[in-house]
Parts: sequence; C-alpha cells; structure tokens
Amino acid sequence: MIDFATHPDRYRHWTLRIDGPVAELILDVDEDGGLKSGYALKLNSYDLSVDIELHDAVQRIRFEHPNVGSVMVTSAIDRVFCAGANIAMLGQSSHAEKVNFCKFTNETRFGVEDASECSGQRYISVIDGMAAGGGYELALATDYIILVDDGSSAVSLPEVPLLAVLPGTGGLTRVVDKRRVRRDRADFFCTVTEGIRGKRALDWKLIDELVPRSKLQETATARAREFAAKAGRPVNAKGIVLEPLNRKMGESELCYDTVTVALDRENGAALFTIRGPVTDAPSGLAGIHESGVSFWPLALARDLDDAILHLRANEAELGTWLLRTEGDSAKTAKYDALLEAHADDWLVREITLFLKRTFKRLDVSSRSMIALIEPGSCFSGTLLEVAMAADRSYMLDGTHEDSNLPPATVRMTGMNFGPLPMGNGLTRLETRLLDDGDAIEALRDAIGKDLEAEQAEELGLVTFIPDDIDWDDEVRLAVEERRSFSPDALTGMEASLRFAGPETLETKIFGRLTAWQNWIFQRPNAVGEEGALKLFGTGKQTAFDRKRV
Amino acid sequence: MIDFATHPDRYRHWTLRIDGPVAELILDVDEDGGLKSGYALKLNSYDLSVDIELHDAVQRIRFEHPNVGSVMVTSAIDRVFCAGANIAMLGQSSHAEKVNFCKFTNETRFGVEDASECSGQRYISVIDGMAAGGGYELALATDYIILVDDGSSAVSLPEVPLLAVLPGTGGLTRVVDKRRVRRDRADFFCTVTEGIRGKRALDWKLIDELVPRSKLQETATARAREFAAKAGRPVNAKGIVLEPLNRKMGESELCYDTVTVALDRENGAALFTIRGPVTDAPSGLAGIHESGVSFWPLALARDLDDAILHLRANEAELGTWLLRTEGDSAKTAKYDALLEAHADDWLVREITLFLKRTFKRLDVSSRSMIALIEPGSCFSGTLLEVAMAADRSYMLDGTHEDSNLPPATVRMTGMNFGPLPMGNGLTRLETRLLDDGDAIEALRDAIGKDLEAEQAEELGLVTFIPDDIDWDDEVRLAVEERRSFSPDALTGMEASLRFAGPETLETKIFGRLTAWQNWIFQRPNAVGEEGALKLFGTGKQTAFDRKRV
Repeated sequence: MIDFATHPDRYRHWTLRIDGPVAELILDVDEDGGLKSGYALKLNSYDLSVDIELHDAVQRIRFEHPNVGSVMVTSAIDRVFCAGANIAMLGQSSHAEKVNFCKFTNETRFGVEDASECSGQRYISVIDGMAAGGGYELALATDYIILVDDGSSAVSLPEVPLLAVLPGTGGLTRVVDKRRVRRDRADFFCTVTEGIRGKRALDWKLIDELVPRSKLQETATARAREFAAKAGRPVNAKGIVLEPLNRKMGESELCYDTVTVALDRENGAALFTIRGPVTDAPSGLAGIHESGVSFWPLALARDLDDAILHLRANEAELGTWLLRTEGDSAKTAKYDALLEAHADDWLVREITLFLKRTFKRLDVSSRSMIALIEPGSCFSGTLLEVAMAADRSYMLDGTHEDSNLPPATVRMTGMNFGPLPMGNGLTRLETRLLDDGDAIEALRDAIGKDLEAEQAEELGLVTFIPDDIDWDDEVRLAVEERRSFSPDALTGMEASLRFAGPETLETKIFGRLTAWQNWIFQRPNAVGEEGALKLFGTGKQTAFDRKRV
Repeated sequence: MIDFATHPDRYRHWTLRIDGPVAELILDVDEDGGLKSGYALKLNSYDLSVDIELHDAVQRIRFEHPNVGSVMVTSAIDRVFCAGANIAMLGQSSHAEKVNFCKFTNETRFGVEDASECSGQRYISVIDGMAAGGGYELALATDYIILVDDGSSAVSLPEVPLLAVLPGTGGLTRVVDKRRVRRDRADFFCTVTEGIRGKRALDWKLIDELVPRSKLQETATARAREFAAKAGRPVNAKGIVLEPLNRKMGESELCYDTVTVALDRENGAALFTIRGPVTDAPSGLAGIHESGVSFWPLALARDLDDAILHLRANEAELGTWLLRTEGDSAKTAKYDALLEAHADDWLVREITLFLKRTFKRLDVSSRSMIALIEPGSCFSGTLLEVAMAADRSYMLDGTHEDSNLPPATVRMTGMNFGPLPMGNGLTRLETRLLDDGDAIEALRDAIGKDLEAEQAEELGLVTFIPDDIDWDDEVRLAVEERRSFSPDALTGMEASLRFAGPETLETKIFGRLTAWQNWIFQRPNAVGEEGALKLFGTGKQTAFDRKRV
C-alpha cells in the first residue's frame, strides 16, 4: 500500500528547518529509501516517496509554522540540486503507476504555488550544480530561482533528447506560460541534454538570479529574508499541529472521523459517506483555533484528501466513486458562515485553501463520480461542492417508502460562490452554468434555502430526480453501466467535460500536458521493450519508429 | 497517395446545390467510394474521402459563390443524417492514419465555423433520423441544428459506450463549451448509445429547433433564408473559380507555382521554398478580382495548404520541415498593403482568412519546423508568419562568402499584427512575446523596416544568428539532432510549447481533446486485438482492463 501520511520525524529524503520567518527544505534523497526495490535514488533523483514528504512539508509549513514567509529549497548533495524523476523507477513502473505518480507530483507543485500565491509563503530554489528534468520542474514551481554561475551549474529539461518522454510535471507549460520564455528558445532548451547555464539562463528567463558560488548562501538568505519581510504573514501566530489522522484501513472499508469509504469490488465502486459536523460550530475565531485539527472543516479536508489519494494510488479498479453525505445541513451551514466571516484569519484561510485543493483533486481524479442525494444527506455549502464535482447526480424526489426522514434537500452557501474555485479559476457553479448570468443570479437568490428535488433540478443543481419507485434501479443501472465502459474512454471523456470555460496554467497542465504525456507513456518509442525508457543506461540506442503522428 | 484536391464534378459523397443566397450540401455517401477497400461506408458513415470533399465544398462556397449567406447540410438517405466515422475503417487504420484523419476532420469543422463567424456564411444542420458520433459532431460545427420530432430521430455521441474511444472531432468540447450543455447532462448524453431525441434534446441545448417531419423542409428553408438575409453577404458579386492547382508531384520534389518542397528522405526532412510574388501587386481592388487564383496571396494559400496536407498524410517519416522563402521583400509588402487596404472586400477577406487557416495548419502539424533565413529570402509580412510558426529559426548574420547578395533581412507588416491570428486568438508575435507590451511596441515601431540579423534578434524575431563560418554546421546539426529524437516526444513537446497564453475552443480541441483521443487510440482497451474497435460488429464483448489511469 502506498501511504500518503508521513511526518518530518520519519522523512528519509527531506529535512525541514525553521529559522524565524524563513524555512529551509533540504533535499538529500536516501538512495535506498524509495517505495520499491530495483532502483537507487542517486543524485537526488526521486520517486513518489520523495514527493509524499515534500507534500507533507509544504502542508506543515502552512499550518504548523504560520509565521514563515519564505521557504528556501536547497540540496545537501555537492553540485547537485535534483536530477528529477528516477529513470529506472519510471522504466519499471506500470502505465498506471507513471500516470498516478505524475498527477500527485503535479498537485504537489501546484500546492507550492498555492502557498505562494494565496498564502504569501514564497519559495526560492537555490541551485548549486545540476537541476535536471523534474529537478528543474520543482524549481519552476517556486517563485524565484537562484543559480550558481560557475561554468557548469545548469538547469535542463533533457527528457525529450534523453528519454523520449516529456517533462511530465508541468515543465513545458511553466517555461512558456509562467516564466514567459520565448517559445523558440524553449524549443532549443528542451532539446539540449546538458541544459543551459550562466548568463544565457538568465537572459532567457530560465532563472531569476545568477551568483558566484561564494555568494550563494548569503544571497539566498538575503532573498529569503526580503521575501519573508514582504510576505504579510502573521507574527507570533500559533500554528496548528497536524496530528496523525485517525483512520482505519480495512479490506472493505476505510474509516476516518468525517469520511467512510466502502470498497465494493464486485461493482468496481467506492462508496463515500462524508459526514457533516457532529458538534455545533464554535462561536468565534478563538474557538476555531482551539479546535485545531478537530475543527470539522479541517478534519474534513484532511480525511477526504487522504481518502482520495489512497483510492487513486491503491484501488485502481474501483472506477466509480459514489459520493454520499450525511448530517445536518443547517449545522454545516454555520461552519461555512464561520469560514466566511473570518476569511482574513490565517488559519481560516489555510483551511479554506486546503478544502479548495482537496476538491480540485476530485476534479482531476480519473474516476467516474456520481453524487447520491437522499434523505438524511447533507449537501450543504462546502459539502455541496462534492456534488458539483461529480460527473452527474441523482437526487431522490420525496422520501423512501420505509423511511420517516424528511425529503432530501441541498443548500447553497457563500462557499459555493467564490472561495472554492476549480483549477480553471471559476467556481463549480460557474463552470456548470457557463456564462449564463441569469441562472447564476437565480442560484444566488436561493442561497441559504433548503431546496427539494424539483427546485434543485430547476436551478440546474442536480441531474436526475427519480422517485422512490425508480431510485434503486436508476442508481444500480448507472453504476453497472459505468462499470461496463472502457476505463480509458471514461477518463478522456470526463477530463474533457469537466473543464468548460477558461483555461489556466493548472488546467493546461492537467488537461493538455498530462494527456500528451500519457500518450507518450504508451508509445513503443518510449516504453516498448526497446524503447528509450527501457534502454536508458544500457548504452544501446532506441531504433525509433520515425513516423510523425 | 491521399490527394486533397477535388472538384464538385468528381464528388462521390456530396452534392452541392446553389439556390440564390442559399446553398445545400447533401450527403449521400457512396458505400464503395472510400479511400481504401475493406469497409463499406454505410448509413452515411465516412472516411477521409468524405471530408476531403466537404472541405472542398466549404472552400468553393466561400470563393465561387460569394452571394451565398447560408448553407443547409442535409442527407439524401431516409431517416439517416450521418453515422459518423466508419468503424471498420477506424478498426483497420494505423495509429498515424487515425490521428491524421481526426486532425483534418477537425480542421474542416473549424473551417465551417470560420466561414460562419468570419464570413457570415451560416450553416444549418437538418437532421431527419440519426445523427450519430461524427455525424452529430458535424452538426455541432454548424450554427443551427434542426431535428425532426418523430419519437426516433436523435442526436448521439455513442463512442464511449460503443467503441471505447472518444468522439474524436470536437464533440465533447463543443457540447460543453460551444453549446453550453451542462456538464452532468453531457456526461449522461455521452453514455447513452441511442442518444437523445425530442424535447429533451431541445431542453438540454443539444439542438436548436424541433419540428415535425411534415414541416421539416419548410422550416429548414425558412431558417436558411432568414440566416441568408441577415448574413451581410455581397449581392451580385462575381465569384473566383478555384481552378485546379498547377502542381507536379515527383518522387523527390513537389512543385507548385509558389511553393517547392524537396523531399530529403535521408535526413527525414522536407525543404520548403516558398516564393514571394514575381509580378508587382495590382494597383487596386479591381486588379485583385481580375487576377483571381493567380493573385499571389491566394495562390500562396492554395499551394501551401495543399503541400502541408500532402506531406502530413503521405510523408509521415519526413519529421522536420525546413522553411525557406525567396523573393523580393518590398514587392511582397505591397501585396500585404493591398490586402490591408481592401480588408472589407469580400474576396480580400476570403484570401486573408484562407491564409490564416493555412498558417494555423502549420501550428498544429506534428512536424518540427525550422525556418532558415538567408540572403535572397523573403520573410516579409505574410511570409514572416511562416518563420513565426516555426519551432525555431536560424538567420544568417551577414552574407555567404561566395555570394554577392546583400545580407538577409526580415520585415514586419500590418499582416503580422492582427489579420492572421493563431487558434488561441493571439497573433504569433503576441504569443511569442506573451504579455510583454514593451516588446510588442518595439516591434510595431519597426514595421516596414528591413531588419538585419542583429536587429531581428534583438527584437525577438529570430532564435539564432550564426555567421557564414558557423551556418552550415549549425543548420546541419539542428536537422540531425531533430532526426535523432523520438518523433512522439517531439510532437508532445511542440504541441505544448507552441500555444502559450489563452485557450479557445480550437486550442482545446487540438491540444486537450486530441491528446486524450491519441492516448485512447493507443490503449489496448480500444485498439488491442480484443479491443472494442476491433471487436465491434462481431458480437464479442471486449474484456476491459478495468484499471483507471
């Protein structure tokens, strides 16, 4: 099992140091510390285990060290920053493993950018020696790249010339779209194995600052302090320790405090039950801070995030996720109101951003998602986003015959209108009702109301509203049907339908770059028995099929 | 050889009828008229040959029938509009053939939309019976979809449930992005084999009008007349007949009036020489109309377009296109000035739009493009777009030792600043210098100047400026190096680097949807020996690998 939970005490590859407002993340990959045997993580090359720790560190800096305003990413290895994804690891990975690895790594890179853009924790890459492939891609996710000017330190994306694959974690897109490197220069850059160093790297905007090695430490520290001084982070705030999750992973069920997932292997489905809060929302900001990780929205984000990551990495054959909720709508709405009222507080901001990132994981999960809205459910505000992330939804019109619960309702709150955008920059409601201002206005008018099935359908919030007589059959058929389709075709279809509207760096990377990379990860030129990934290091050359496609 | 040149007299699948301001394109696919044997094009299903004719017809309506303001797309087969791409054809096609087929079909669909949006020739789909898969995708490219309300006529995208592939020519994207069908409804729609009919099709925005069969002809004609009346097309304008191209296709060379392509099989390269005008620009609008197809910009668009299509479809192993020009910069600039001065004229508009579409084909061609700018070249205005479309460029600094030509220059004209945008809606210069207003302003200041290598480099117009001593080696190395890389990795890399900046329906379809489809076209679930495309029609079910990736 691949486990995404870790702790700095258990890190094998990173060291996290905090020095007042400046943090340092030092990469020193344990060659034998990879997830699998069969490859040695030399030269700070990485597999998923390295990114799991990075992801954990970025999260902890946000929650546990709120005073930190800048983070230096450095290497403990002489003349090596990071050599990128380990090639032997890629060579022995299955297609699904490669794709899942790239997805999580991409999400982690975006997590770094989210910390910078939304929380003002700025990241600085300090490159002494080589930053190659995924190593440079990691640097590209940071705000500021310092490179040693020594005639050999270089940044590079050698995937195309060396390995016949793409830089898989956003490098191509970030070079031209984020750093505005001219496309013809980017073309050259991505074809020179040894990369680009010195003044040309600076002139071409591949890096931000060039320094002699003797000045590296001094310059990096100075920049980190400058960034931290401008970061606007709270002073003397007390962090929230991200205690270990309370989870039980059984053969047929995952249990968290706020989420249970039943694993229905027969139907290839995972049945999520996401629970609204049990206790009343605290009365104010102090109460949120006191609650810490047991504050329901934070607990929800942590539990749901881990469940998504676990299922993606470990349960590839559960292709359909059925999304249910349960709880008290009004009680949940009070938590939303609290998040909105204190949106300026650093902790509330972090919790909201964490929820945002978690729901974004749903948007890019290659699983069919069906929301089931029944009496007793709690699709209210924040939790309504789960239904809006689903590919379709079924809402019971009325009640179940044998139940004395009132009819199912859904409820919108302010959380559905801004704080939790998708990767395309729009809310899920805006994407759903693209450019239909009247429809969005009608939704706004219904904020706070408990909407029964017919109203919800009329407003465009749910797909189908079968009654009790049809419910079981409709849901069963939907699951069976989904199970009967090609998983690949579903992935491509869902990736295309989920992101109407504008595009961003993020949707470009998850939609366009990922799709091209996935294609290449299937091509014999890269992954065949004599493909470049397989032959790398053997001294043999791949005899490419020269047809351009 | 796949030939993209045709004529209505030779059409096997379409009939083009002109009735004043209304044209009708009637689809009646000749079952035995496909490009290859081994499949029968039943139920108006199509292969590339059908789209080659459609493309020709759309072009001719624009140039030969300028008075036409609306085009009805209809079927001659009872209760069948179009069944989409022929499945047996897809099943027996190579990966490269499938991808190339989808690309051209996509370009043709965008050509329909371009005729509507930019020239006001509106298209109406008249669907009596089934419009399935690519058949509905064709309808989606039109402005207005009329469906018969008879309890059985339906629109559908059954690719995912039936064939384990995607609707490959923009259907998914157009449903949610163009027609604003809600994503959850689109999800359902794309999974029901039989499609959606009647009122639900209308309510869900899958069609625009529902009529009883008895009213179909009358309604379609009325709508066509209404569209034509509002189209703003010229009355009594005289069309320009698209005479057959003057071309010679040899084993090692393609020759057109304005373009020669040398086929260098040893180096896997095609060497384009694109010639500027030989004669002076006519003195005014009347001269353009009199010149007809021999007017240089129109001749250029036609020749270059055909050359691109030919090389893509028939020369897959020529992976690098070297782009050279020759001619007189000043003379070429006068043609540009003429196009700009008479931009409102219907013919000038059509010529400019044709040039735009041709250059767009370069942008989405999966070939490495290198522009070579040498003394005697003519990268001026419209022709400079060729260099801007290239992945990189080399410009000789100075002259060749053995030559008495003056140094190479490039020249911008107004044509580089608006009339010839890329699919992302920006000019190539804007995409190149993304969001750098100062750099774009500096370019504007240099309009009309002959810029030598150093100036061109400083302005960001060229990549490298070797001198005579280095020229041959640098160019040779670039070609050899390109030849040594994986063609697939190059395709993915170039597709990612060429389109910085915003996204549009067009870039989404060519970048995102195409990449997903290409991936699926490689997956065993679709194309393996027991894949869905292979087993379709045999009665056997594909045993899918159920892992979600």
